[in-house]
This record gives sequence, structure tokens and C-alpha cells, in this order.
Amino acid sequence: MPSRFELANAIRALSMDAVQKAKSGHPGAPMGMADIAEVLWNDYLQHNPADPHWPDRDRFVLSNGHGSMLLYSLLHLSGYELGLEELQNFRQLHAKTAGHPEFGYAPGIETTTGPLGQGLANAVGLAIAERTLAAQFNRDGHTIVDHYTYCFLGDGCLMEGISHEVCSLAGTQGLGKLIAFYDDNGISIDGEVEGWFTDDTAKRFEAYGWHVVPNVDGHKPDEVKAAIELARSHDDRPSLIICKTIIGFGAPNKQGKEECHGAALGEDEVAAAREQLDWPHAPFHVPEEIYRGWDATEAGQSRQAAWQERFERYAAAHPALAREFSRRIKGELPTELTSEALIEQAQDKGEAVASRKASLACLNALGPQLPELLGGSADLAPSNLTFWQGAQVISAQEPGGNYLHYGVREFGMAAIINGIALHGGFVPYGATFLIFMEYMRNAVRMAALMGVRAIHVFTHDSIGLGEDGPTHQPVEQLTTLRSTPNLSTWRPCDAVETATAWDAALKRQSGPSALVLSRQGLPHQARTRQQVAEIQRGGYVLKDCEATPELIIIATGSEVALAMDAATALGENGRAVRVVSMPSSDVFDAQDAEYRQRVLPAEVGNRIAIEAGHRDFWYKYVGLEGRILGMTTFGESAPAGDLFKYFGFTVENLVAEAEQLLEDADD
Amino acid sequence: MPSRFELANAIRALSMDAVQKAKSGHPGAPMGMADIAEVLWNDYLQHNPADPHWPDRDRFVLSNGHGSMLLYSLLHLSGYELGLEELQNFRQLHAKTAGHPEFGYAPGIETTTGPLGQGLANAVGLAIAERTLAAQFNRDGHTIVDHYTYCFLGDGCLMEGISHEVCSLAGTQGLGKLIAFYDDNGISIDGEVEGWFTDDTAKRFEAYGWHVVPNVDGHKPDEVKAAIELARSHDDRPSLIICKTIIGFGAPNKQGKEECHGAALGEDEVAAAREQLDWPHAPFHVPEEIYRGWDATEAGQSRQAAWQERFERYAAAHPALAREFSRRIKGELPTELTSEALIEQAQDKGEAVASRKASLACLNALGPQLPELLGGSADLAPSNLTFWQGAQVISAQEPGGNYLHYGVREFGMAAIINGIALHGGFVPYGATFLIFMEYMRNAVRMAALMGVRAIHVFTHDSIGLGEDGPTHQPVEQLTTLRSTPNLSTWRPCDAVETATAWDAALKRQSGPSALVLSRQGLPHQARTRQQVAEIQRGGYVLKDCEATPELIIIATGSEVALAMDAATALGENGRAVRVVSMPSSDVFDAQDAEYRQRVLPAEVGNRIAIEAGHRDFWYKYVGLEGRILGMTTFGESAPAGDLFKYFGFTVENLVAEAEQLLEDADD
Repeated sequence: MPSRFELANAIRALSMDAVQKAKSGHPGAPMGMADIAEVLWNDYLQHNPADPHWPDRDRFVLSNGHGSMLLYSLLHLSGYELGLEELQNFRQLHAKTAGHPEFGYAPGIETTTGPLGQGLANAVGLAIAERTLAAQFNRDGHTIVDHYTYCFLGDGCLMEGISHEVCSLAGTQGLGKLIAFYDDNGISIDGEVEGWFTDDTAKRFEAYGWHVVPNVDGHKPDEVKAAIELARSHDDRPSLIICKTIIGFGAPNKQGKEECHGAALGEDEVAAAREQLDWPHAPFHVPEEIYRGWDATEAGQSRQAAWQERFERYAAAHPALAREFSRRIKGELPTELTSEALIEQAQDKGEAVASRKASLACLNALGPQLPELLGGSADLAPSNLTFWQGAQVISAQEPGGNYLHYGVREFGMAAIINGIALHGGFVPYGATFLIFMEYMRNAVRMAALMGVRAIHVFTHDSIGLGEDGPTHQPVEQLTTLRSTPNLSTWRPCDAVETATAWDAALKRQSGPSALVLSRQGLPHQARTRQQVAEIQRGGYVLKDCEATPELIIIATGSEVALAMDAATALGENGRAVRVVSMPSSDVFDAQDAEYRQRVLPAEVGNRIAIEAGHRDFWYKYVGLEGRILGMTTFGESAPAGDLFKYFGFTVENLVAEAEQLLEDADD
Repeated sequence: MPSRFELANAIRALSMDAVQKAKSGHPGAPMGMADIAEVLWNDYLQHNPADPHWPDRDRFVLSNGHGSMLLYSLLHLSGYELGLEELQNFRQLHAKTAGHPEFGYAPGIETTTGPLGQGLANAVGLAIAERTLAAQFNRDGHTIVDHYTYCFLGDGCLMEGISHEVCSLAGTQGLGKLIAFYDDNGISIDGEVEGWFTDDTAKRFEAYGWHVVPNVDGHKPDEVKAAIELARSHDDRPSLIICKTIIGFGAPNKQGKEECHGAALGEDEVAAAREQLDWPHAPFHVPEEIYRGWDATEAGQSRQAAWQERFERYAAAHPALAREFSRRIKGELPTELTSEALIEQAQDKGEAVASRKASLACLNALGPQLPELLGGSADLAPSNLTFWQGAQVISAQEPGGNYLHYGVREFGMAAIINGIALHGGFVPYGATFLIFMEYMRNAVRMAALMGVRAIHVFTHDSIGLGEDGPTHQPVEQLTTLRSTPNLSTWRPCDAVETATAWDAALKRQSGPSALVLSRQGLPHQARTRQQVAEIQRGGYVLKDCEATPELIIIATGSEVALAMDAATALGENGRAVRVVSMPSSDVFDAQDAEYRQRVLPAEVGNRIAIEAGHRDFWYKYVGLEGRILGMTTFGESAPAGDLFKYFGFTVENLVAEAEQLLEDADD
């Protein structure tokens, strides 16, 4: 039986070999955290390498994602479908072993990490999801949800502001089954951290209400083990285990220094490390007995089998609940969901309301059908209107609810939402003002990169928010959202388009959606049944003329009503004008060419786009010949009506621009 | 002589009246913090209402910027040029009294606040600037820089992650003249914060190395005064004074509740508050004796006069230093700056280097001429290449340096940089990877909104960063930067354009600049003197053909070399092709129409843009008829060369697209 040290050295050797072969990567963290990982994975982690989707597995997050070879080594050694050839192919095109762990690439990667601090936030989300799912589904004598979330993290994660947001909230929420391991190696890229990071981290986390195990020697398995026991015994609050480690442990000349953090050690140092660690094996060679020491496949199978038995007993006792659990874990919506009917009702009702208010109506109508909804707001619930009638606050005392008060923590919220979505069993949504999308921006991008269903409600979508002024008025944010690959963005013009946007966001399993909503009231638009159905195509003809149009006006959101009035006025001038409402340009772009040509015929070159957002986005639809009424500066502080006038968003101005364009075209 | 309570009530009355008149705003914070503000402003704040630009004034930052009426009341009462009519015009178009304090609108506003946490970060920057400027200029017996930075903040600021980043750094830096007042009123928009904010804030700040004065009754002037004395006596570390307050103090039915946070109190409650506070005066009426109690004009004049005398003695003893101080405070660059010569030298030298390395060469060449440079990096100095030969680390022990190790704190860095720029005396720059611009995004926007000279070095600008993979590869970030009003963005193609970008950024006093630089080496481009000079116009003809071009290829950064090679190949095919290098589209857009037409003649409709960023931005220059080689998906993890091929950024592909375009046009 190999020693713990030998088992850990397999991680060190694979990591330094893979980085050396790729000639890039980060050997320091895997070599420094190998001993901790060995204890956690071999003695505690409840998982099944043969089924990385087993719902009740423990979750393991490597928040210091640059140490990806640590995770790949663990997955490989413990029996996941990740062969040696993948490790040898580290950081190469189409390898499962990307530079940072990418969700969906290799089995067993729970989340994509690399942007520091966000893995920790995902872990908080995973732990919240576990606890809430357990509260919703476990029954007396039937525990089907019961697992830990373990997270590795480094100095960088702790310096990032998001670590404050999510650890503060994790403390308030008392997430007893979240256990984090801080790799306290005293080194970051600029060198020894004492020049820029002198927090008393134990004290900081105690201030958040965490249980802290300080001063653990991360290279002594007994100490690590004792710390984990201690952490698990505190089930009323999250635990932070502070492990003193030596970065690059085993590399005799580079360990403990920045040099081994983010570059290959070099052939000589790799050879010297082999000697130092007494690891005489060839590169990428792991002796059979070491593999046996790591192999988790049998234990994993029996763990999952035992769970499966428990689940079957549960299904026998609570058949409806068991069906519901399976549905939610699969991420399927209820078949009886009435979101399509809701759209038609909204059309029939014809209410003129702010789209944020229309969104609340959607939540009130659909919420009762969707127990998987797990909402929240970053301290703006009364403004975002996301606290619907059936919303139940989730707290340490009442974990079974469906709504989180995230506090003023936008970035933390979005990254926690990613964790909740990744866990499974929930459709999470969060809300803030559109401008504060910027505070959470990279987590929205990560949702798009991972392809998880996260729904963001962004209200107060333009200068229409009025008096709060330029700091709060979005201008360029819509462009940012629309330029993000795999993010679906909606800016509805009335209650009907809002309901369609919610329907689309709920049904979009392959990535996140952004619902961009107005503060101010918006008039209702008349539509035929066909027009109502076409909203879901992202862009459609809302008003047409009899002949081939001589002008097309494209608008979104609050500017659609202006476009409609301008088209009427232009029609009275004898102009043949079409209005295209385009609530979602990405959805419209995904339509077939025939449909797109039908809505925006190539032969109609006279086009005007109007949107109270940055104008440049619209060249894509109006070209160099068209005109754009949009923003090019920041906003101002004033009542919304004054601002729309001041910035030229008026029917008069739109009509004048249209007439000018048509005259120029006639010349 | 009016009592302190009466003086404070003037703030309360003006605040509730102005919010009531505007029918929107935030009366709660001004009414809650009035007593604290009264003690600070009347007993401590060293300022001169007649000269809000006096360099040695104390700085006051209202980080909870929604409480803007607190600041406007203070400015008005103490004698700044902010008349009653401005207060009555609160939140109206073109008023100086915007919904949130906007830098440049009213005199005495030190920074724009509203997006929570950033004012606190600005304050940290102001305090760093003060200490470093003092270390650089004060001499034995001559103290010309010596002022405090005071910051008010609320629960929201403390929940935001950025508060962690900047307070941790402020602790490490030992900023003894930074004093922050926490308005601990227990209320945020969602209600009583105990459901989402349970930090032991005193303990948290002690963990950062701050001096904390806990449990101060924010409505007892004696306690507030004692706390300030205590804070000022601790000059080796920043102080946090935790003031228990009642939000909306004085409004009998709404105080202590969320109701008074962000909406007018209503006529009845305003009347009731008048009674409760024993303030019988009409709306917006402040009795003369109250004005006298607040008036700081005389004291301010004599303070500044005393400083002026000190400065004249300093100038007599150290004339060169005094001239340098005045120059730096004015924000003027040294007349002898050789940045233009550097551009020509780079052209003559003809080096093929990564633009991040070319940027380092600029810093090494210009740094010695620019003592006002105050650089830094968010823990990526060895990658961003911003730690130039003359860089001296700023620390508590050695505050006179010119380089800050910000640690892994991007958002904090950018907002601190804004504070440093606002203070005056410095040209700050910071650095991170372009993708992590997202972490700091809103602070970059705030720099643009305020119009301050902040320079951001964003390296690793595309899939060209290679193996680190999609989490680290920018795609849509260039579009975000370019869509930000008043931000100047450069993506240079070689060392010559890089030097031009630095020259432009240094000279741009009206706003921030982003220098987007490559990780990988870039070939040098041949240019005539005229072409070298035209780089500063943002876009220029880098390669032309003899006849009118039948095709224009527009490129930036690493794709310019591809465009040049493709143009050569197309030329060999008999095609007349022009290549336009466009390192800065915003600078190009600001050129006169004649120049723009000369570079991109309207009659040449065959255009291709190529850039390893999101493609949609380029419709603006190629229209619907043109073609764009850009990104539409996220990147991958692989060596950069493989990725450029995989995503189609090759000469062959560009030539093929061009031929196709020309054939289609011929049809």
C-alpha cells in the first residue's frame, strides 16, 4: 500500500510533467495542494467517477482554477473517463484538459474556474442549492439530498472583492456543509504577498460568522484530516481551513517562490523534483499500486447504489415528490406550464404598464407552477419587482424557500446563481438595475461560457430611469450584453413581449438570458395572433404598409411606441413605412434567412433604428446608409420625460429624421 | 448662537424639502447623518468654500451618494457657490444638484458617487495620493501637503466587494489620514439588513489592520467628536468610526424604516418632521443665524492664506520643487516630454515585439521624465510589463514611490486610480489582462463619466493569449470599451502605434484611455513620416494602391500584419487594395469629415474588417455590404498560433474572403 505522500506525489508528477510538456501552465498550486487533495479525495469525497452526474455527489470546486492540473490529476487517478493521453494533451486544441477547468469539457468538472473568486462564489451557490433542495425534498426517514461542497482557493480568491460578498452571505446563511480550504502559501504573481495582502484572514472570516480552523500544516495529512473532522462537526456555519503550504512543494530550487506559480519548471528542475520527491518513474508514468490507492470507482459505485436504494424507497413512499425531484434534476419544465397562454392573455388584456411590472405579473402567474424558481435581488426587490406573491425568503432557519435577499452584492449574486444552476434542481434568477450588470459582468459571461440557465432581470433600462442620473442610466450596457456569445438578451416593448421574454428565458436550457426592463410605463401594442406568435422570433413586423415599404423603422423597448407613432405620422404624409420591433436581436439573428429577409428585405435600404442605448450597435441592421437615433453620451439627472426630449427621443425628431433620410435617398 | 442640533436640522430640513419638491430622492441618509456631518464640517474640515480647488484642502467623499442632499446642504450652508435656487432645482435638467453628486456639476464635489462602494475606493485613492505627494514634496520645515480624507459610507458600501479590496489595501498601506464614518442604521432597500448583512464590521476592519471606533451614537455630537479625536490620534492606520444612527431621523412616522430611504416623505410627514425637530421655518428657509453658524468662508480664506504663505516660503527655499508642484497640480505634462520623438525612434528602430513589451519600452523611456506617473498592476506586473526600470514600490514605510502593488483587486485598483487622478498631482495608470477589465468595469466608466485622466493598460488582448483559454480570452471587451462615451481606446499593431497610444493617453486630460496590448510578438510596419504622424488620427492608410482602391481592408492590432500580407497577395492577383490601420476608432471618429472620407472614401463600398474581437462592432465601418472577420463565439485553450488558424484569422482566409467579396460585387 503506497503512503499518502506517494499518492500525493502522483499529482505532483503528473502536474509538473503536463505543464512541462505544454510548456505553459501552473505547477505551483497542484504541487502545493496535493497533500490536502489526497486526504480530501481519498478519505472524504463522496462521488462516483462512473457517473459524474449522480445528483447527491459531493461537489468539489477548484476556485484557484489555474491549478487545473490538480483537478485533472485527481479525476484521472480516481477513475473518471480522463485518460493519460488527455493529460499529455494539456492545453492543446480540443483537449478536455484546457488551461483552466472548463465545465463540459472533462467529466467531473463542476464549474469553470479561473477568474479568481468566482469558484468560491459558485461553491456558495452549490451549497445553497444543496440545502434548499434538501429542505424541499427530504422527508422523515428519507434523506435523498445530503452532500458537502468543498472548495479550494488561494490568496487571489481572497483578495478579490467577490470573496467578501459571498462569504459574508454564506455566514449569514449558516451554510454548514460548505468547507473551504485556503492554500496559504504567501505567494502571488507579483511575489511575496506581504507587500499587498496582510489581512488576518481567520479574523475576517470569524467576522462573517464562519468556523475557522487556522494554522493547519497543509503538508501533514493528519493535521488536514483533523481539520476536516472539525469542519464537518460544525454544521451550523461554513468552515474555512487555513492550510499553510509551500507553493511548488517538491521542486527543490523553485518551491516557495513565484517562479513555480505560472510557468513550466524546466527539464532540470523537473528532474530535480523527481529526485527530491523520490519519484523515480518516467514522465506520465504512474505505477499500478498508486492507481489502486487512488481508485474510487468501486467505492463510488456502491455509494451511488446505496443512494439509489434510498431513492427507490423514497419513491415508493412519496411517488409524486420523487417524480418531481427527477424532473427538476433533469432541468425539464413542468409540462403544464402556461407561459404561452400567458402571452396571449397579455395581448388580450392590453395593459399599459412598465415592463418591470409586467415581469412581476409573469412571476405571479408562472411562479406557482415553477417550484424550481429560485429568485433574488441585490437589495432592490421593491424596485426590480422580483419578490412575487409566492416568494418565500431563504434563511438559515427556513432554508426551504425560493427567494434570496442577496444584499448589495451584484457580482456575488450572479456567481452564486451560476453555482445554483450548476447544482441542478433549480432555475435561478436574480435582479438588479441594468447599470449594475457591470458590477457582476464577468459572472454573466461565465454563465454564457458554461451554457447554464441563469436568468437576469435588469430593470431601469435607460435614461428612462430619470432623476437618479448618469451614474444609474445605462447607455452602452445593451451593446455589451448583445456582444456576449451565447447570452440571449431581451428588451420588450410591452407586457406581451415581456411575457414572451420570460417564456424564452425559462425554456432556454443552453445558456443565460437577460431581461432588460423599463422603470417607466409603456403603452400596449395591438397585434394579430400571428404577430403575437412571431415575437418569439426576436424581431417581427409590428406595423406594415400596403406597398413595399420605402422605410423601415427598427425599435426596441420603450422606443417602439415612438416608432409606431412616427410611422402613423409618416403614413399621413403619404410615406410607406414598416415598423419592426426587435426585442431580441440574437434570437432574430438565429432565424432562417428567409424569415429575416421577410422582416428586413435587403432591397429596403432606407432604415432607421431608434433605441435609448448606444447607437453604434444598430449599424448591424441599418448599415452605412441608414440612420440611428441612439445615445452617444452619458445621460443626465432629470425626470424621464425631459430626458427623452433632451436626447432627441421624440416622435417629431424621428419623423424629421425619416423625412430627411427619404429626401436624401430620393436625391 | 444656534445649537448643534439646530445646525444639523438645517440639513434635515433642506434635504426633506428638496426631495419633496423633486418628488424623488433619498431623505433618509441626510437626515440620519446630519449630526455627524455637522461636527465634522464645523469642527474639523479644512476647506475654503471660495476656492474648491485649493490643493491642500481636506477631501470629503459621500460614498453613499444617494444621500446627495446631505452634500448639497453642506456646500450651500458653508458658503460654496451653490445657491438656494439650485437646491430647489434638485434632480432637474441642467441643475448642479443632480440625483447623485456629479463631479464638475457643483463646486466642492470631489468625486461622483452613487454606484456603491466606489466612493470609499476613491477616498482610499485620495488618501494614497495625499501621502505620496507629501512624501515627494514636503521638506524639513516645509509642509505643503498635509490634509485628511473623510468618507461617509453606508451598509451598501460595506456589502459591496470593492469595500473589501480597498479597505484591505488601505490597511496594508497604513493610511493614517483616512477616516471613514459608517452610517450603521440597519436599513437597506430590502428592509432591515439583519436578514442579509450580519458581519461583525468592527472585527472585519480590525482584520484589515484598521483602527476602529465602535458604538458611537451618531446623534450625539460629543461622542462623534471624541471618535474623531481618537481617529486623528491614530496616524499609523486608517480609522473606521461606526456610528449608530436612525435613518430619516426626525420624521416621526417613517424614521428607522426603509420607507424614508429612497422616496419623498410626503407633505404630511414633512410637516410632522418640522414639528418633531422644532424647525418652524418655511420650506427652503434657513434663518440668518443658522447660516452664520455654518459659514466657513472666513475661516476658509484664512486657512488657505496661511497655506499660501507656507507655500511661498517653500518656493523661496525650494524654487524648482515649487514650480514642479504647481505644474503637477495643474496636470500639465513637462514641456520637455519626448513622447513624440519616441514615436519616430520606434519607427526608425523597426523592432518586432509584443505591444505589451513596446509599452514597457515607452514607460522606460518616458518614466524618468514623468515623476507624476503613479503606476500599478493588479498582481500581474510580470505579465502586464508595467513595472518599469524606475518603478519604486509605495508602502507604508516608503510612501514616496511611484508604483502600487494593488494585489488581485481589479475593481479596487480602477476606483483607487480615479481617486488618485481626482486628487491632482498624478497621472495614474493601472494594469491587468483585458478580460479582467470586466471586474473593474464600472470604475472605468466612472472615469469616463467624470472625465479624469486614468490610463488603463489591458494586456493579453485576444485569443492571442493562447493556452489560458476562453475564461481569459477577450471577445466582446473591445466593443464594450469602444461603446463607452468619453473613453479613448487604442489597440496598436506595433511598437510605433503603441508609442503613439501612450502619447495620446498622457496628453488626454479630458478622460481615461485604454491601451489594449498583445501578449504575443507583432511585426513592425514600414511607414512614411506622414503615416507615422497620421497614427494619432486614430485610423490611417497604412498601405495604398495606385488607382482608386476596389477594396479596403480595415484592421487593428495583431490583425494588421495579416491585412498587410493579404493586400500584398491580392495585389499580386491584380487587385487594387488599401489597408487602413485603425488603432483607435474613437479618435478616428473625432477627425474632420474630409480626413475620414480620405481614409475611407464613401464610394468604396467593398470593405473587409478583420479583428480578433467581436465582429459586430465593425458594421459601423463596413456596412451591410462589407465583410467582417471577427469572433462570434468564445475562444479555446490552445497555443495562439493554432487558435488564429482555428478561428480563421489567416492570410489565406482573408484573401479568400476578399476575392469572394469582389466577385459578388462584380456580379
